[in-house]
Amino acid sequence: MLAAAAIVAAPLLAAAEAPHAPSKKSSCDVLVTAAHVITMDAADRVLSPGAIAIKGGAIVAVGTPSELSSLYSPKQRISRPRSVLLPGLVNTHTHAAMNLLRGIADDLPLMDWLTKFIFPAEGKNVSPAFVKAGTLLACAEMVRGGTTTFADMYYFESDVASAVDQCGMRAVLGETWLDFPVPDHKDLAESIAMTRAFLQKWKGHPRVIAAVAPHAPFTNSKESLVAARDLALEFKAPLLIHLSETKDEQKQIAEKYGTTPAKWLESIGFLGPNVLAAHGVWCDADDLRLLAERNVGLAHNPESNMKLASGIAPVVAARKAGVAVGLGTDGVAGSNNDLDMWEAMDFAGKLAKVSSGDPTVLPARDLLRMATIEGARAMKLDDRIGSLETGKRADLIAVDLTRARTHPVWDLTSTLVYAAKESDVSLTMVEGRVLWDGVRVRTLDEAKVIREADEWRNKIAASLAPPAPRAGAK
Amino acid sequence: MLAAAAIVAAPLLAAAEAPHAPSKKSSCDVLVTAAHVITMDAADRVLSPGAIAIKGGAIVAVGTPSELSSLYSPKQRISRPRSVLLPGLVNTHTHAAMNLLRGIADDLPLMDWLTKFIFPAEGKNVSPAFVKAGTLLACAEMVRGGTTTFADMYYFESDVASAVDQCGMRAVLGETWLDFPVPDHKDLAESIAMTRAFLQKWKGHPRVIAAVAPHAPFTNSKESLVAARDLALEFKAPLLIHLSETKDEQKQIAEKYGTTPAKWLESIGFLGPNVLAAHGVWCDADDLRLLAERNVGLAHNPESNMKLASGIAPVVAARKAGVAVGLGTDGVAGSNNDLDMWEAMDFAGKLAKVSSGDPTVLPARDLLRMATIEGARAMKLDDRIGSLETGKRADLIAVDLTRARTHPVWDLTSTLVYAAKESDVSLTMVEGRVLWDGVRVRTLDEAKVIREADEWRNKIAASLAPPAPRAGAK
Repeated sequence: MLAAAAIVAAPLLAAAEAPHAPSKKSSCDVLVTAAHVITMDAADRVLSPGAIAIKGGAIVAVGTPSELSSLYSPKQRISRPRSVLLPGLVNTHTHAAMNLLRGIADDLPLMDWLTKFIFPAEGKNVSPAFVKAGTLLACAEMVRGGTTTFADMYYFESDVASAVDQCGMRAVLGETWLDFPVPDHKDLAESIAMTRAFLQKWKGHPRVIAAVAPHAPFTNSKESLVAARDLALEFKAPLLIHLSETKDEQKQIAEKYGTTPAKWLESIGFLGPNVLAAHGVWCDADDLRLLAERNVGLAHNPESNMKLASGIAPVVAARKAGVAVGLGTDGVAGSNNDLDMWEAMDFAGKLAKVSSGDPTVLPARDLLRMATIEGARAMKLDDRIGSLETGKRADLIAVDLTRARTHPVWDLTSTLVYAAKESDVSLTMVEGRVLWDGVRVRTLDEAKVIREADEWRNKIAASLAPPAPRAGAK
Repeated sequence: MLAAAAIVAAPLLAAAEAPHAPSKKSSCDVLVTAAHVITMDAADRVLSPGAIAIKGGAIVAVGTPSELSSLYSPKQRISRPRSVLLPGLVNTHTHAAMNLLRGIADDLPLMDWLTKFIFPAEGKNVSPAFVKAGTLLACAEMVRGGTTTFADMYYFESDVASAVDQCGMRAVLGETWLDFPVPDHKDLAESIAMTRAFLQKWKGHPRVIAAVAPHAPFTNSKESLVAARDLALEFKAPLLIHLSETKDEQKQIAEKYGTTPAKWLESIGFLGPNVLAAHGVWCDADDLRLLAERNVGLAHNPESNMKLASGIAPVVAARKAGVAVGLGTDGVAGSNNDLDMWEAMDFAGKLAKVSSGDPTVLPARDLLRMATIEGARAMKLDDRIGSLETGKRADLIAVDLTRARTHPVWDLTSTLVYAAKESDVSLTMVEGRVLWDGVRVRTLDEAKVIREADEWRNKIAASLAPPAPRAGAK
């Protein structure tokens, strides 16, 4: 009976889409049909069966297969009779290149992890070739699992952008600044200069959005944060930052500035609609109100926060305060180990329930929303992506309901969120282009990407090994 | 470097296995070779590459492929050059037949869930045919995901047993008793009589172990609990029970008996090595000591406890107290939605870390242990299963490391626990018999099982629908 409420009979075309003179068919590039289309639009429309017509990378119509077949002559038809079409998933926080360091050091205290593994491995190895190899590996994993858009913070982001461009995904890519030298810039002047060049280079790209990413309030000086803000405003670029991830960060900021990280950022005029803040684990009620007022997006990373024992983010309160909360995986080098947005939904829901003592919070529908349209809203991309609606870009996925594990279906959304898995994704499209067809990642030589990642592993391991004793040394 | 520690050079055969006169090869049924064999034996041996020789359903040797090839002439060879062999996973708490009710009612308060959905659906539908159909669906899901053994509590368990027997899995199946009438027995006398017949029928089966399963201390009278204990002792059968799942249960038991559920069970002589208790969320330190002393096994169900907001089980403390803690999924009708032991590991680890504030607790190795040998120990089956050692039954799985998601490998155990997924399992064997070969569930007609589950869904939905108004009624 829940299913009956969720899977409504396919409605007629919306007025705006209705054919006034249906005598002649329009052309379109692709017509995708499936058992269900979950639009994630404002009315939560679900069409069973459903279809999407795509032209020039955009969605030109959403309706029933028979409606759209009578209206459009597609150049190509894609049929998924046992699948659900959904908007592509939006991963609001990653460090894609760190895929080369997947699980390099798990189950360790944060400082050991950073100082004994991550910093040495990065210091000795991060280069344009490293980030390209790591990002391609991440892209292969993401498109297979149905992620079409991600937000990234790392170094050599222009090379990350090249990898993303090659794979065909959509991404907001933030060049990371810290108060100490990082692999591709050594001081604030260099950070500004190289990020300016990065922003200029990718300006106007249809899928790659270059951004500025000061690491965090406790690792970046006021001067650095203000310069990042100014550069972002100059280029109308997003600002990505880690915010209130750990209790220790709260303590450091309290000692230094006598306030919370969010209020400190507000006091220097950093917060605005272009800001996407990751974590927010230790945000208090005033911080959340502030983020909502300034229209800051929040990236919730339940698996990372759990695995690193950072804490439990006040996601329910944040959404209640009016903050758009997307879901993220964080990087795979210790904080998660994969880029699986299906698990991000599952973990986010279950963590919210057990931590609040209330099984009704963050129901499946809200989780799917956070992984799609709300994530897009957190990234200020909801005018382009996040739902399947006429006029939006054609970023969509098909999820197969063929496995024993997804039967029977009592509620479609519940099945997707709590029982479907990344391996059920059989189609991933960005701008109407097929990146993953259920058999092959079409835009990458995946075997080569994996082989090169394995070679990088060996190279990095060698760089970390203690030097062999010299012959003849006592 | 972590990997270097984990993946040791393949050791020589243990003395007991060493050939004294290697001139003539022994026969065996199957020789399975793979890139790695993780034995989960007491020495945590990992062989890279590794091989397992199987004869008469038992493991007759574990060694390197070249060692075993020189010793054995197998009737059949199974080669998995890009996979890891592991002991089959052990799911210590399920209600398999409830697979037909997967996601029937999610994100609801426990009492609404029970009284508005589960009880009506069960009351009107549970029959031998229902449990057979649900269990076959559950078995298909489990063998695909690498689970070889499970513990179950439900009704018509003799029909559950038939389904398990057909599929070829191993299981401990507990006929559930409650103080109110259940679908297959109406009072204690009937419960005893039908469970006695069930225990007699399956006595001596190589894979199916019949058990007695009084539901919980707060739902079963002292008389019922004592009768269950006596029947189990008479048949040397396991006793399955829910224990301290919710705060409300603690309160009820405190009001009724002035103590905790565990201490109440101890006071009536219920606790012993044949007891497998599910949940233990609200057990205190004395309860855990008691469970350890009485050698009671504990089934930890992190996803269920989170989704139903039951609480966070003191797993680290339980293991420290000496309790064998296995992992379980619980049933899929609201408490979890799938029977995925890979997620059980992932959730158990991350939940323990965030709730303790310590990222080092329950490292990957412990989680894999809980899902295999420690789960077997919790079920008192560790003399037969749970590790890959000479003399044990040949219950094993192969996990492919071919996907972008599992590359590169820095630490094999970490990759398996935090990055591998149920869809990576390409071989599932029980007693040396292939149940899942990576393409097909060999012992079931999976398409038919899914079709019948979908038909059951419609039948159950019709039984729950309000009666249509009669024609002519005002």
